[in-house]
Amino acid sequence: MSEEARTPTPRPGGRSTRVRENVVAATLAEVTEKGYDGLTVDAVAARSGVHKATLYRRWNGVDGLVADALTASADRPWPLPDTGDLAGDLRRIAHEVYAVFTDPELGPTPTALITAAQRSDVGATALRAFFAARHRQAAAVAERAVERGELPAGTDGAEVIRAATAPIYYRLFVTGEPLDAHTAERAADAATLAARAGLFATEAD
Amino acid sequence: MSEEARTPTPRPGGRSTRVRENVVAATLAEVTEKGYDGLTVDAVAARSGVHKATLYRRWNGVDGLVADALTASADRPWPLPDTGDLAGDLRRIAHEVYAVFTDPELGPTPTALITAAQRSDVGATALRAFFAARHRQAAAVAERAVERGELPAGTDGAEVIRAATAPIYYRLFVTGEPLDAHTAERAADAATLAARAGLFATEAD
Repeated sequence: MSEEARTPTPRPGGRSTRVRENVVAATLAEVTEKGYDGLTVDAVAARSGVHKATLYRRWNGVDGLVADALTASADRPWPLPDTGDLAGDLRRIAHEVYAVFTDPELGPTPTALITAAQRSDVGATALRAFFAARHRQAAAVAERAVERGELPAGTDGAEVIRAATAPIYYRLFVTGEPLDAHTAERAADAATLAARAGLFATEAD
Repeated sequence: MSEEARTPTPRPGGRSTRVRENVVAATLAEVTEKGYDGLTVDAVAARSGVHKATLYRRWNGVDGLVADALTASADRPWPLPDTGDLAGDLRRIAHEVYAVFTDPELGPTPTALITAAQRSDVGATALRAFFAARHRQAAAVAERAVERGELPAGTDGAEVIRAATAPIYYRLFVTGEPLDAHTAERAADAATLAARAGLFATEAD
């Protein structure tokens, strides 16, 4: 809780918001280029133009910077697919995860950020909140499927999203095995099947 | 390849085998207690009774020690369930992964080893080989299901295992979200459904 209290409350368009945006951007650039082991408050200060003392006071060091970069990412809205059926929506989501992380331009920043967050307790807490927020947001595709009568009432939408994407993250961040678009979309199809069968309906427990 | 060439070839019961066993055991104990950042060749030498120069010559430092501890784990046989049907076998496997990693006695060593392996290229290569070996071994439960006519011919057994366990590893090593036995077994059930529907049959591509 004390960590959260340290994070500045941004007023949109205000000076504090601009400072935070600059600091988050600098942290992302530094962690992408140098990794967690090469990340320093000095370099983030130089890159963001924000005084080192301010970074220590508000972010409490590199782990707080990494955590806040994740929190900023979690807050940023991202477009959800709405293809008209669950299978299509989950395939789009799975393909998006695959495409972002394997893209040579787009992939390195989220990969470095997730890897860095795993290195501290503050980072791990932010990482867990980041994924929980993503799961909650994306759960809307399962909730629409319930409304359409495609899925049983009481389906845990966040769990449907986890099922559709876990095999992708498993390869990317655990086993390091190769990943292709077909494998990613098959994970989505497996989640669709399981969800339709009622496996993620909490009433079924 | 040069890394592999460095690993001693063990003759069962021979001196080289005993040395390796001691070194692997010491590496596991050290990485569990101190993590990757606290792992040193000095401490492994002291704990194993193997000379530091030998550790550098044969293992090339801490990353090689971590990699070889994983290779030794991959080589160790582990009992596969044979309950008579795929759903039962996959539930047992998923439950085993859940039970080992969340057990306060058993969990810390494999958790520390996987986390440490992710910190170097040599470790990441060994980690990938470790999981590939595990997937291959456990694929036997899917192969038996094919023989029984439970699954379509051409089913990729390793992929069935990945599907059954990825949601567990996703929580443990990526999101840090809580994990319980029910969630683990539901991942197995989802994999069973997908495999029965032919999703992992390579002919279906």
